[in-house]
Amino acid sequence: MKHTLTDLEGVYANAVAAGIKADGLDLAYIHVPNAVSCAGVFTQHKFSASSVSYTKRCIKHNILKAIVINSGNANAVTGKQGQLDTKTIAKNVASKLNIHSSQVGVASTGIIGKKLPMKKVEQGLTELLSKQNPKNAEAVSRAILTTDLVSKTTFIEKKVGKKTISIAGITKGSGMIAPNMATTLGFLVTNASLPQDVLQRGLNAAVKVSYNMVSVDTDTSTNDMLLCFATGQYKISSTDKLSLDSFQDALNIAAIDLAKQIVKDGEGATKLIQVDVVNAVSVQMAQKMAKLVIDSPLVKTAIHGEDPNWGRIVMAIGKDTSIKLNPEKVSIKIGDFTIFSKGSPVNFDRTDLKKELAKSTIFIIIDCAIGNANATAWGCDLTKGYIDINTDYN
Amino acid sequence: MKHTLTDLEGVYANAVAAGIKADGLDLAYIHVPNAVSCAGVFTQHKFSASSVSYTKRCIKHNILKAIVINSGNANAVTGKQGQLDTKTIAKNVASKLNIHSSQVGVASTGIIGKKLPMKKVEQGLTELLSKQNPKNAEAVSRAILTTDLVSKTTFIEKKVGKKTISIAGITKGSGMIAPNMATTLGFLVTNASLPQDVLQRGLNAAVKVSYNMVSVDTDTSTNDMLLCFATGQYKISSTDKLSLDSFQDALNIAAIDLAKQIVKDGEGATKLIQVDVVNAVSVQMAQKMAKLVIDSPLVKTAIHGEDPNWGRIVMAIGKDTSIKLNPEKVSIKIGDFTIFSKGSPVNFDRTDLKKELAKSTIFIIIDCAIGNANATAWGCDLTKGYIDINTDYN
Repeated sequence: MKHTLTDLEGVYANAVAAGIKADGLDLAYIHVPNAVSCAGVFTQHKFSASSVSYTKRCIKHNILKAIVINSGNANAVTGKQGQLDTKTIAKNVASKLNIHSSQVGVASTGIIGKKLPMKKVEQGLTELLSKQNPKNAEAVSRAILTTDLVSKTTFIEKKVGKKTISIAGITKGSGMIAPNMATTLGFLVTNASLPQDVLQRGLNAAVKVSYNMVSVDTDTSTNDMLLCFATGQYKISSTDKLSLDSFQDALNIAAIDLAKQIVKDGEGATKLIQVDVVNAVSVQMAQKMAKLVIDSPLVKTAIHGEDPNWGRIVMAIGKDTSIKLNPEKVSIKIGDFTIFSKGSPVNFDRTDLKKELAKSTIFIIIDCAIGNANATAWGCDLTKGYIDINTDYN
Repeated sequence: MKHTLTDLEGVYANAVAAGIKADGLDLAYIHVPNAVSCAGVFTQHKFSASSVSYTKRCIKHNILKAIVINSGNANAVTGKQGQLDTKTIAKNVASKLNIHSSQVGVASTGIIGKKLPMKKVEQGLTELLSKQNPKNAEAVSRAILTTDLVSKTTFIEKKVGKKTISIAGITKGSGMIAPNMATTLGFLVTNASLPQDVLQRGLNAAVKVSYNMVSVDTDTSTNDMLLCFATGQYKISSTDKLSLDSFQDALNIAAIDLAKQIVKDGEGATKLIQVDVVNAVSVQMAQKMAKLVIDSPLVKTAIHGEDPNWGRIVMAIGKDTSIKLNPEKVSIKIGDFTIFSKGSPVNFDRTDLKKELAKSTIFIIIDCAIGNANATAWGCDLTKGYIDINTDYN
């Protein structure tokens, strides 16, 4: 069964342990020699890493054919040396793959403000690229991790017109997760053939309903990057709206699947929280409300305590003064249980609800009853595990 | 030595245990029979409690002479019954004080969404008001607490023109602290004499640099209210700019003192964090940056771990895309130690810095070097104590 990037024809990947991290795989690349297009979405952080600005520039003027990724060091806020190191890495990989360095993107993740150990990186690159046409995406999905406990992959097959297209993806992320445009690192490959601008629009749309709708801790990374390569196997015409819509659906599903895996593996998390806001006045308003709920420390701790504290949910949606709602029309459900109806508390069976709250995924549904726009966001509970991980991180 | 509200002439206060909380004082009032003005700042929460809308309305049309306060129950999101209960309390107190019910404000704090136990409240009010001219503000400062560990009071004396005026205040708050206009409950009394509109402008200005510049957890209460009564003893002319400025200084000092006590007693907090942003392009920008830092879970956990992780400080100020800064000009100090200079890391002595980070108050100074506007915000570290308190709260 196909399940990862290199299960697609014309996609190669490998990973090695270069010693950037104390142990384990930490240097990887993905190579799509015949890529017809590559779209990217990047962090908007003011201190974004040199890998972000470099790769952004490459994508603007070229079709990326490869991305090289290191974990254990973000190479962010490292000044001119950091910029040089990013370029050195791209050049090194480009010469080994026999392509131009502007066709090689660079992605880094890990601690901010430390210089890359370039000697180790260069030795690692030699080992990494010594193998011809490697098909080792599984190792790459592990090599890009930092505080993550599990690797995160997706594989979607979907009928688009008369063809079945595939989208494969990997991602990482566990803390500093409150994306604005994209979060942490994610790499997708599709065997569809789409022009770069069409693929870019599709990726932007997918990010809006996936990566931009998850949060672990409201903090945003300097190194966020989500790329999507198209191998060009199955052509989708830019004017075939039906096929483009089908492709967009598949891309959304893949991106949402990856984004949800990030929050599920959120630092210290024990529960995934899905918040659906329905019947709001606009999608933006619904998205804002859903994110207010998944971002609230008091909602997150209540869910951790398996406490149906609707007061905190109401507190979270009402605290932003720009929110448009009528407090007397709002209803709230946890799973199938209505706990708050048209602005008033409901007498509910605490025993049944306790069972619902003991589950590992908690569904909160907020009905605004003043429009017909919906949105979904995903978050996780806030636990002592988060404190442990982030008090001791260094 | 004077230290609390009732040390001012013409200010009376008392508190009793009415049984709204499981134990301890929970019902109180402050009475300023000859108040010449009373200003108020209230939460902007969409689900604000009936006590907030009621007291806001009173202040708009009348000079408040008294405020009755209960803890243990916020009487928020309790529908029509909650509104009726607020009015019943005001009427009850007004008849006992022989004033009109629109001259009695009501403030509530505690759990959201539960109806007030009105029988207990009414019995409590009878006991509360049985004493003539009580001077028991110390008990009131304890009666208004919920998850707070300590009571919070301030007393400022300042020369204004030729007179020495006094401002006394009490406040509460420990969690759900991310004020927007005011936070939780705060009550100030001054023996100055100022028209209501002048006092209101002064209180608004004080809130901007005090209550609105603290955060424990980014969550905002439905019941926030800050009042300031003027007993009218020392007249300050509305046209005497110098005296008004002196009074404003005193009011700012009192409000900042109270607001800082709230975050110092933040749920689970072990350290107070003061963030000064200097040389920013505007005060709003400086305030926004300072608040981004005190709100960041990753900064808060780093400070808890006594880790000089400037990467997380940089991450926090850069994550808001609306921030105006030049990454290459930013410098950061912790106490007297520069850890980041003009966009680059600095080699610092970790031993000395460790001592600085072991202190109970941590000073973070961020120099933007692109303007001359400054702002200060106060927050606290994020610890397992916060998780404990909010996982088990019910």
